[in-house]
Amino acid sequence: MSAHDLPTPALVIDLPAYGRNVSTMSEALPGPRLRPHVKAFKSTAMARDLADRGHRTFCAATSHEIEGMASAGLREDLLLANESVDRERLARLAALDARVTVAVDSEETIAAAAEAGIREVLIDVLVGFRCGCEPEEAGRLADLARSSGLEVRGTMGYEAHVVLNPDRSERERLLKEAMDRLERAHADVGGDVISGGGTGTYDLNRTCNEIQAGSFTLMDTEYAKLDIPFELALYVQATVISVAGGTAVCDAGLKSLGMDHGDPTIDDADVFYCSDEHVVFVPREGWSPQVGDTVRVWPAHVDPTVAKHERFHLVDGDEVVDTWEIDLRHW
Amino acid sequence: MSAHDLPTPALVIDLPAYGRNVSTMSEALPGPRLRPHVKAFKSTAMARDLADRGHRTFCAATSHEIEGMASAGLREDLLLANESVDRERLARLAALDARVTVAVDSEETIAAAAEAGIREVLIDVLVGFRCGCEPEEAGRLADLARSSGLEVRGTMGYEAHVVLNPDRSERERLLKEAMDRLERAHADVGGDVISGGGTGTYDLNRTCNEIQAGSFTLMDTEYAKLDIPFELALYVQATVISVAGGTAVCDAGLKSLGMDHGDPTIDDADVFYCSDEHVVFVPREGWSPQVGDTVRVWPAHVDPTVAKHERFHLVDGDEVVDTWEIDLRHW
Repeated sequence: MSAHDLPTPALVIDLPAYGRNVSTMSEALPGPRLRPHVKAFKSTAMARDLADRGHRTFCAATSHEIEGMASAGLREDLLLANESVDRERLARLAALDARVTVAVDSEETIAAAAEAGIREVLIDVLVGFRCGCEPEEAGRLADLARSSGLEVRGTMGYEAHVVLNPDRSERERLLKEAMDRLERAHADVGGDVISGGGTGTYDLNRTCNEIQAGSFTLMDTEYAKLDIPFELALYVQATVISVAGGTAVCDAGLKSLGMDHGDPTIDDADVFYCSDEHVVFVPREGWSPQVGDTVRVWPAHVDPTVAKHERFHLVDGDEVVDTWEIDLRHW
Repeated sequence: MSAHDLPTPALVIDLPAYGRNVSTMSEALPGPRLRPHVKAFKSTAMARDLADRGHRTFCAATSHEIEGMASAGLREDLLLANESVDRERLARLAALDARVTVAVDSEETIAAAAEAGIREVLIDVLVGFRCGCEPEEAGRLADLARSSGLEVRGTMGYEAHVVLNPDRSERERLLKEAMDRLERAHADVGGDVISGGGTGTYDLNRTCNEIQAGSFTLMDTEYAKLDIPFELALYVQATVISVAGGTAVCDAGLKSLGMDHGDPTIDDADVFYCSDEHVVFVPREGWSPQVGDTVRVWPAHVDPTVAKHERFHLVDGDEVVDTWEIDLRHW
């Protein structure tokens, strides 16, 4: 099938670009040095491709993602890198034929994990501005977890406020502060695992012995502002449906694009406005889009864009060569 | 089931508030004076409820929504209030056992509709900044449509730039300009239908003889800034999963909230930051959220929020009284 014939809006992976992104990361962080974060791509088909390249440990943001990974046979070492007090969901994870580790950061989350039959945990440490305990609390919580019957594998801490900073030296400075906190906590907690990091710090973070990156696979226009060697490999293919008054309109929109990092990008055009099923854009000089033309809409944030679609269409040149279901959506 | 026991994040309709919103609108615009826009709620269950209250004509933004409505037996008068040149999808609409009207605004969209076997169209007129022809083109396009074998029922024009303006007199001024364009076009086109309007102009738009409103059913914090008599009836129920450093974190996030109108709102708190599965917030004085607490997260934009969820949970007081599938999602 020709890519031009895809019904639009269609979520497309540029397969050669994706392949180069994964090869670059695999060279930098081989095997379990990378713990791919499935929340970025939400597809067991992509996870299997990463496993085939040697990355067989994964992390996830929802228990639903963990269950889907286990169902797909990707069960060697799955980390729920997020807190939960939902005993029913945690019990379902505990019952999986899979190695499941869960992040905890409070007495409540430790109690929920222990009561649900979870066996292994990481102590999540606040190193940025999302979840995790204060470093001074980490040792006490690890003791509590151990006395509750949980195995404490180590610590994690995600520097969410660092990974997207486009200034490399500023990323290094902020990362050092964040990792100082994680190292302090880890000294009190112990264990083999120090987990954290992301696409923006994959080559800077030397504290963590496994990096929780996912966006590097597909990238977005926000990550593309950083000096990292990954290419844009994901776009929403759309069709021009209306042209008038100096603007053109294509059939992608708020329901097919993650919008929290702002408007998407269209090459050789300025995006003017997005509504539910429309991107309105002003073509730059030299381009007169016609009704029926195909355009590529580059999303500003990969994760929430992916979560809006049912499948990826894998394109090589002009050919659609495969389809990957986005089967880890919802909760 | 108690609402407190819903697995989170959960999309909740406050059923009494929804009922009051619909009653208020039905009084203002009885029967076919309202053509509910299903893109706002994407649920044939809600559409059926509106049909039971006398509103049996609907409009939609995607052909998939039209097909879903016809499958659900809601087939009396369905308007695709959007352009398409996808002949395959248009042919599927033409083959439905349903009255289907399609918006056209160019030679290309007229040719696509005619070739696909569509029988009835509206000429879409540019009255704001999204789709539609210039008013001066409308008569010529109507002639072209008629000579292509299409029945032209009239015109439509959606004042997207007006409906969310919080200043009523400014809404009136902008609306007048927009509707002057639509009236000029309609004089050249003819036909019984003048379709347009939305929740923000439902009581101001006297040009259109049917109003394409949908957001009034559930509302959002952006529409709530307007002086219109509709209440917030939709929220994402979330659970507090982490508390540290003066902030709390709940398990709603970018993947459960439409973000193009900005951050959601939590009562008695300031929202600090949203990530994929987290809203980080600073509770105001007098509130110390505990891990496990339930919070209501009010979305800033209803349509893209709804499109992220599989179902609505209908709550009356503290009881979950029904579930409506959001069955018109995707494309």
